[in-house]
Amino acid sequence: MRSVSIKELLTGKEVLQEIIINGWVKTFRSNRFIALNDGSTLNNIQCVVDFEKIDDTILKQINTGAALRISGTLVESLGKGQSYEIQVKDIFVHGGADPEVYPIQPKKHSLEFLREKAHLRVRTNTFSAVMRVRSALSFAIHQYFRNNGFYYFHAPIITGSDAEGAGEMFRVTTLDEKKPPLDEQGEVNFKEDFFGKETNLTVSGQLEAEAYAMALGKVYTFGPTFRAENSNTSRHLAEFWMIEPEMAFFDLDANMDLAEDFIKEVLKYVLENCEDDLLFLEKRLLDEEKTKPQAERSEMPLIEKLKFITDNNFKRVTYTEAIEILRNSKPNKKKKFQYPINEWGADLQSEHERYLVEKHFKCPVILFDYPAKIKAFYMRLNEDGKTVRAMDILFPGIGEIVGGSQREERLDVLTKKMDALNIPEEELWWYLDLRKFGTAVHSGFGLGFERLVLFATGMGNIRDVIPFPRTPQNAEF
Amino acid sequence: MRSVSIKELLTGKEVLQEIIINGWVKTFRSNRFIALNDGSTLNNIQCVVDFEKIDDTILKQINTGAALRISGTLVESLGKGQSYEIQVKDIFVHGGADPEVYPIQPKKHSLEFLREKAHLRVRTNTFSAVMRVRSALSFAIHQYFRNNGFYYFHAPIITGSDAEGAGEMFRVTTLDEKKPPLDEQGEVNFKEDFFGKETNLTVSGQLEAEAYAMALGKVYTFGPTFRAENSNTSRHLAEFWMIEPEMAFFDLDANMDLAEDFIKEVLKYVLENCEDDLLFLEKRLLDEEKTKPQAERSEMPLIEKLKFITDNNFKRVTYTEAIEILRNSKPNKKKKFQYPINEWGADLQSEHERYLVEKHFKCPVILFDYPAKIKAFYMRLNEDGKTVRAMDILFPGIGEIVGGSQREERLDVLTKKMDALNIPEEELWWYLDLRKFGTAVHSGFGLGFERLVLFATGMGNIRDVIPFPRTPQNAEF
Repeated sequence: MRSVSIKELLTGKEVLQEIIINGWVKTFRSNRFIALNDGSTLNNIQCVVDFEKIDDTILKQINTGAALRISGTLVESLGKGQSYEIQVKDIFVHGGADPEVYPIQPKKHSLEFLREKAHLRVRTNTFSAVMRVRSALSFAIHQYFRNNGFYYFHAPIITGSDAEGAGEMFRVTTLDEKKPPLDEQGEVNFKEDFFGKETNLTVSGQLEAEAYAMALGKVYTFGPTFRAENSNTSRHLAEFWMIEPEMAFFDLDANMDLAEDFIKEVLKYVLENCEDDLLFLEKRLLDEEKTKPQAERSEMPLIEKLKFITDNNFKRVTYTEAIEILRNSKPNKKKKFQYPINEWGADLQSEHERYLVEKHFKCPVILFDYPAKIKAFYMRLNEDGKTVRAMDILFPGIGEIVGGSQREERLDVLTKKMDALNIPEEELWWYLDLRKFGTAVHSGFGLGFERLVLFATGMGNIRDVIPFPRTPQNAEF
Repeated sequence: MRSVSIKELLTGKEVLQEIIINGWVKTFRSNRFIALNDGSTLNNIQCVVDFEKIDDTILKQINTGAALRISGTLVESLGKGQSYEIQVKDIFVHGGADPEVYPIQPKKHSLEFLREKAHLRVRTNTFSAVMRVRSALSFAIHQYFRNNGFYYFHAPIITGSDAEGAGEMFRVTTLDEKKPPLDEQGEVNFKEDFFGKETNLTVSGQLEAEAYAMALGKVYTFGPTFRAENSNTSRHLAEFWMIEPEMAFFDLDANMDLAEDFIKEVLKYVLENCEDDLLFLEKRLLDEEKTKPQAERSEMPLIEKLKFITDNNFKRVTYTEAIEILRNSKPNKKKKFQYPINEWGADLQSEHERYLVEKHFKCPVILFDYPAKIKAFYMRLNEDGKTVRAMDILFPGIGEIVGGSQREERLDVLTKKMDALNIPEEELWWYLDLRKFGTAVHSGFGLGFERLVLFATGMGNIRDVIPFPRTPQNAEF
């Protein structure tokens, strides 16, 4: 008899056969019905015990959380709520779970409580569903790019460059923490550090991805990135995963087409492959929102919201048009925005992005052609000399989910911009080489993976969609 | 006219159609034949120019490395070496590449020279082939696990624990590098650091993966791991990618079965999907080895070697049997080993592993049941009280490619072992929780991704199979 997963069992292929399964007890009621789960699916299988045939010392160990091996026969179920069940022949207890001390009891736990138990929370329905969806999204991303002629590229995590300026960085070092070696000027002598220079954790693999795009054509990264920013919000992590495609010969329009198609396809994959988990998460969200005032509830149930994304075109709007809309909007006129929109050039805040997406257009929006001065140095300058070929995709409830641009491929324009911003050329000599040798139009974008998982699962806090979150003052496990 | 990749073009589907392609010039000869490459494949497409119809200032810019957009008609080729070519109608130069300064000229460059140009080396045939194979292997890995019921799990990169002891660690910090805050005892006060404690870069995601396996059943990590070890060898990197599957209810036999099947399947994927690149890399290796004495050359050409792995069973041998073989081996008796094998309990060195794989068994070998004292604390103790359920997979030319074990699931045995090794229980409280609540037999292994890429590509130095290698004194780009 081979051991088989509950996901396989529930397809019914092994009906009337003797099987062995392993899993953890979710509930045990009436000394007769074990709901067993093995993580392969959200669904439990009901195991029906004839308690007269099972030793009492075994029965006593069948508590929530105990690990069991059960042998028996798969039969069609007459009970409500399940198609198949197991008539138990024998039970082996791998390991018990004392109900006096095991924290994950079959009752409602707050998400905050479970965050303290990040090693056990994935045993709950909510977190196992979230993490299965996270896994499915990851695979969908790799599959999408593979099917579309992209090569996966591993950007370096430890970097000797801090030129991109996307955020505060973590230093990586093996120097003595208390008495670092000093040079003749009395400064820390990083020449004695492991890499012979000061190094940090990457904030983005984009610049390196550009080097690979200018050889392999279409590449993407999918790796961890870091921000040493002291933001304790439900949207920020110090360590998060990012997807960064970079494509030679793509202009901004092609970039926007790709980003939109990409997001739709990976969400379609989840809709098609994670139905049970999404239904559960949808119900969870509805329950959670019942306690909230109407105005704060989601406009659509989770699955409808995902289908709304996959079935509708994203609205493409220039920054200039967006500013006009915002300037003339009710909340602006009534001074309801914390940051009033007075003139062209203002950086958009979350409140403005949400107004555009949730109130004005009521669909995902791609804003493009932003003022140069509020965007990064590597974005391609438009003919007008004041806007750049940047684009941000804004999602309902999430805000910015994608940020991208056509890259400045002209050496002279790029170096002028770097000079103006005091970015030393010797720091990015290799990045400039890409413009000296076979430069071409190219584009790319970055997608914060956890924001996509937040959106796809309907969870409210980014700490709840990554296994072991890293935030200020918190690096447990 | 849509732009199409050279990989698509070479299927011939668009023959006689007008097409646009973009790419970089590999060579330009007789003012007539451009070999153009766009990275989608190793193969170039020949673009035939009627130089009387193309402006002279354009022709002059068609140097190796220049980026071009070419429009023309795809036709069957009468020339040798290609099935299709393009009759060029128009050429646009995206960006030139001055032959006086562009380093990647069409001649042989040493791998050492190219390492200094890691941002450009992927424009060579060798590195583009290696990186396409690397990408294919990555995808094969994700696909294998997805198809086999595993969930992808992102282990944390920054860790507050240094208990695993797999190697020296990099410190991650935002404290002032020169004058860190001190506590009352005069020690560095890590409470003031970003995470409120001392943190490091992970050496392995295994312990966290165990927590996820004990809920989702079968999980795997695929992420960067770090070693701050001053080893300047062709086999070591300070930053490398690792794959770590972890399976609840798997004993060591099931673990070995999985590891063997996994390696075979991902290599099969590469054999089926990377034929052009493998043929090129095979020829490269043969050329390189021509300069070496016969004894140092590979026993088989690359593709034959990969098929040898996929088509043969790995030999499973206990450590105890291996020691007997080594003790009685010629090199041991003739004192040719640097570390002679005298008695049971000796740690195996690379020379011993290579003897077993390359000379004695002449096939991949899985060694298992190692002495407890030379293996990690979390490995399951056998009934004999002196060996543990560890396994290493040894490959020809590479040595250890996989290290794994059945994990110690018994709380009492585990804590006793930790006490003996002075591993504080409070450091790993959450790891012990996994043994307190629903513990079960479980197993896993780790595979160094770059070692697999080395093996699959026939490259000799691990620095040449990762885009931007990090080694002591080197974190360029």
